[in-house]
Amino acid sequence: MNIALAQINVHVGNFAANLAKMLEYTAKAKAQGADIVVFPELATVGYPPRDFLEFDDFVDQAEAVVHQLAEAAEGIAIVVGSISRNPVVEGKDLYNSVYFLSGGRIQKVQHKTLLPTYDIFDEYRYFEPAHEWGVVRYQNKTIAMVVCEDSWNVGNENPLYKINPMDRMMEHNPDLIINVSASPFAYDHAAERIEVLKANCERYNLPMYYVNHVGAQTEVLFDGASIVLHADGTVIDEMPYFKESMRIYNTEEVDKKDNVSGEEAKEKIRLIHDAIVMGIKNYFGKLGFKKAILGLSGGIDSALVAVLAARALGADNVRCILMPSQHSSDHSVNDARALAQNLGCQYDIVPIESIYDAYMNVLKPHFWAKEEGLAEENLQARARGMLLMAFSNKFGSILLNTSNKSEMAVGYGTLYGDMCGGLSVIGDVYKTECFELARYINKDEEVIPDNIITKPPSAELKPDQFDSDSLPPYDQLDAVLYQYIEMTQSPQDIIDMGFDEALVKRTLRLVNINEFKRYQTAPVLRVSRKSFGMGRRMPIVAKYLS
Amino acid sequence: MNIALAQINVHVGNFAANLAKMLEYTAKAKAQGADIVVFPELATVGYPPRDFLEFDDFVDQAEAVVHQLAEAAEGIAIVVGSISRNPVVEGKDLYNSVYFLSGGRIQKVQHKTLLPTYDIFDEYRYFEPAHEWGVVRYQNKTIAMVVCEDSWNVGNENPLYKINPMDRMMEHNPDLIINVSASPFAYDHAAERIEVLKANCERYNLPMYYVNHVGAQTEVLFDGASIVLHADGTVIDEMPYFKESMRIYNTEEVDKKDNVSGEEAKEKIRLIHDAIVMGIKNYFGKLGFKKAILGLSGGIDSALVAVLAARALGADNVRCILMPSQHSSDHSVNDARALAQNLGCQYDIVPIESIYDAYMNVLKPHFWAKEEGLAEENLQARARGMLLMAFSNKFGSILLNTSNKSEMAVGYGTLYGDMCGGLSVIGDVYKTECFELARYINKDEEVIPDNIITKPPSAELKPDQFDSDSLPPYDQLDAVLYQYIEMTQSPQDIIDMGFDEALVKRTLRLVNINEFKRYQTAPVLRVSRKSFGMGRRMPIVAKYLS
Repeated sequence: MNIALAQINVHVGNFAANLAKMLEYTAKAKAQGADIVVFPELATVGYPPRDFLEFDDFVDQAEAVVHQLAEAAEGIAIVVGSISRNPVVEGKDLYNSVYFLSGGRIQKVQHKTLLPTYDIFDEYRYFEPAHEWGVVRYQNKTIAMVVCEDSWNVGNENPLYKINPMDRMMEHNPDLIINVSASPFAYDHAAERIEVLKANCERYNLPMYYVNHVGAQTEVLFDGASIVLHADGTVIDEMPYFKESMRIYNTEEVDKKDNVSGEEAKEKIRLIHDAIVMGIKNYFGKLGFKKAILGLSGGIDSALVAVLAARALGADNVRCILMPSQHSSDHSVNDARALAQNLGCQYDIVPIESIYDAYMNVLKPHFWAKEEGLAEENLQARARGMLLMAFSNKFGSILLNTSNKSEMAVGYGTLYGDMCGGLSVIGDVYKTECFELARYINKDEEVIPDNIITKPPSAELKPDQFDSDSLPPYDQLDAVLYQYIEMTQSPQDIIDMGFDEALVKRTLRLVNINEFKRYQTAPVLRVSRKSFGMGRRMPIVAKYLS
Repeated sequence: MNIALAQINVHVGNFAANLAKMLEYTAKAKAQGADIVVFPELATVGYPPRDFLEFDDFVDQAEAVVHQLAEAAEGIAIVVGSISRNPVVEGKDLYNSVYFLSGGRIQKVQHKTLLPTYDIFDEYRYFEPAHEWGVVRYQNKTIAMVVCEDSWNVGNENPLYKINPMDRMMEHNPDLIINVSASPFAYDHAAERIEVLKANCERYNLPMYYVNHVGAQTEVLFDGASIVLHADGTVIDEMPYFKESMRIYNTEEVDKKDNVSGEEAKEKIRLIHDAIVMGIKNYFGKLGFKKAILGLSGGIDSALVAVLAARALGADNVRCILMPSQHSSDHSVNDARALAQNLGCQYDIVPIESIYDAYMNVLKPHFWAKEEGLAEENLQARARGMLLMAFSNKFGSILLNTSNKSEMAVGYGTLYGDMCGGLSVIGDVYKTECFELARYINKDEEVIPDNIITKPPSAELKPDQFDSDSLPPYDQLDAVLYQYIEMTQSPQDIIDMGFDEALVKRTLRLVNINEFKRYQTAPVLRVSRKSFGMGRRMPIVAKYLS
């Protein structure tokens, strides 16, 4: 039997486009001799559809897509994830299901049991868990169809769930497992995913055909990397990262371990780079925008964003605005200009001094006898934000936010100033990782002027200002932040690791008192296991470690 | 037996303060002859604690509070909601529990079964549901202790859950029910809540002592309104709305229906008014701020916010900034000034023309040959936003956002301009409700100058501009928005109600394409059943009705 795994990039709620894409892949798979073509979890509606699931009309349209796919399932079977209605009056109104379509109709629907409700996932918000488990018989094979998380309660030491749907399916003695997933990217997640799938194969002594989403849905990035595993857990093939594609596997060849290509290399910084480029590209493409704009300061963060944007959208579509003030050093403008020239991006120089002066003129009588301070520093950052938004509005381009994860964490940024933008490109990349990313980008040639990477970081909002005046050294800061944010460690745990007590307490306090700023920032392309945004939900008005 | 219901206003994560408050109420209840004092759901940690629950250290501190309360439970029993750890390795790590403390120790812990995971609720994200149900015996009474939602699967036609924990508890033949809740305010929710509780009493023929939170936790408002019901469903007493308080009820008197005071009146606009005043007050108080600032345009929205802020914080703590431009009409400044004077608030006049000109001067060469339009309109709104933030930074005051729900819905507002602010005061109040609220405020005297209420709404960003140039009449717009946002109706449903098809399609499209703006706005004080913010989760990059 030939099974085509189609890791596709769909668009949330875009039923017509998603259907057309699946019909096209179905025709292609059929032409290439596939017996089954497999699409990911909730492929009809995109993942995550979020509260659109509360609209009956949205559910109706998803059902219509499944029916149209069923009609196309002639001479080939289609396995596809979609929603289905719960016919019982009690419980949530929907199931997250996988459909087996063949002979022009729906042959089998299996619902998902384990509903991820953590981090970015909200599945219990919408779905009722499965209470029955079956298999489907097709071409003399018995197939267990599984949705994503249902394979994730195998081989864990601290399982999140009390039941294991895989065990229940095995009562029907399937010959193979097909898993349709929406498993988001994080730089250390692909390795974990393979371990979990291997544990399934080994436990049940069955091969697995696993298909994942690819592409970005706002902040959530899917890497694809669909996998075929032998019954002994050997990785037969791993499909491309960050690229829509389809591959066809012959089940006998898989069982005989013919053509084992094995796993792809997983280098953290390269994965982050490729994930972000895809994230930018899809954010613009799916919103119907082409052009980006950003403020280029001469620092490393905006330099990185410029490079990543140029790679995602083409240098022609990225416009850099240099906005020097009286506190900007000469090298800032020169470095920024050199970068724009290296990339081949349009750049404009728009000094902000006259704007700043206009603000201070009207504010002077009201600020009488007050010392200069934060308000004045923020005004500079905000004058830049407003100029960028004016360009954005005038030319129909989206402003890219250039804040990194370290400064977002501790609130080292100006709300409505440098925190402006429609998309946070590197908001899930710590400053120390920004340096790694810059060096990765420069590995073959000096794309980012070396001086941008080597000079000490500065906001340049007052004379001789450096980040190190207000913040601990980034290597220490980032290590503490990682332990608190990604690993949810307590202050005492982190101090016990050898970090300075004052540094730890101050850092955690800064994280917690700056929740109000993060609440109002753009969606952050998620590359780690714990990104700011929908996967980290904190109250603003709280008093904890603050 | 005397039962004290203590509807208290706690602070998320502020363990020391929450413990002190509960010890104080316990002492008071004891002094007044209470046998039991009851505190709300998760009273130790505040509701909702959100992802702080993922921190072991946070859980440890909650457990410590329960133990300290247990020590104080001598000569009086304490019923209190808190978290508890799941000792089983499988499943979520925590339970949402109610504790019965007496004789200096924990006598009984009952976990919550039905975990609300919809709208603003995320309980399945953190908690394992109960699998066992018991009662507690105290002073010859058998008591069923219930957490909030566990009473909500009774009497519903479309129950959200498959099991009914109340039925299970009844197997132990309790004499009365104590329910500890965190049931948020919405203007039509209190009536629904009473119906549900009545259905419980009637079904089980038992009296219910129901205690709720009061106070604001960021955007979520709790109205208190704790209730005692007779076994036949009669409301014996309803405690005050929006006010911390404790009342003691004698169970024999309740059973005999002595002293029936019945329900409070529930007038929508008055409830919204009082809820918002409490919301502002708690937002500032719990963050440790005193002073508010806002832009007063002469329109109805900012006028309302000024009044509500003055009532919450005192007129002395509210500063109004009038920022006229060349497009401002004379009456705008005069009306705004008259309002500030009526309220007794400080006001400043800061014209924006010179700032606008400074922007346009530096932008002119870049905007060459482009027509004036949205970019220029937005610049005015943004110059105002920046001025307000400068005042906020300089004087340590929080900027209040003045957007209403209608304009937030359709994106009729400028990001980083009039959408600035730390708290959205009326972001859950439709424009037509703003008029009702203004008339309610003026019912005894003209607090808001009449001209502000009667003149046609205008953003005044270009000559002779009126909201009605860009938007449908507010009565129609708000009715369509309500059907879509609160009632999740489809376009066809709404058209079938008699609304114009073009109007409906345009409105729904505007709602959906403006998700990116709402993503970056301040938390909205929630007064309806569906507010923008944490209770309405939509993807930005989607293609549905857009």
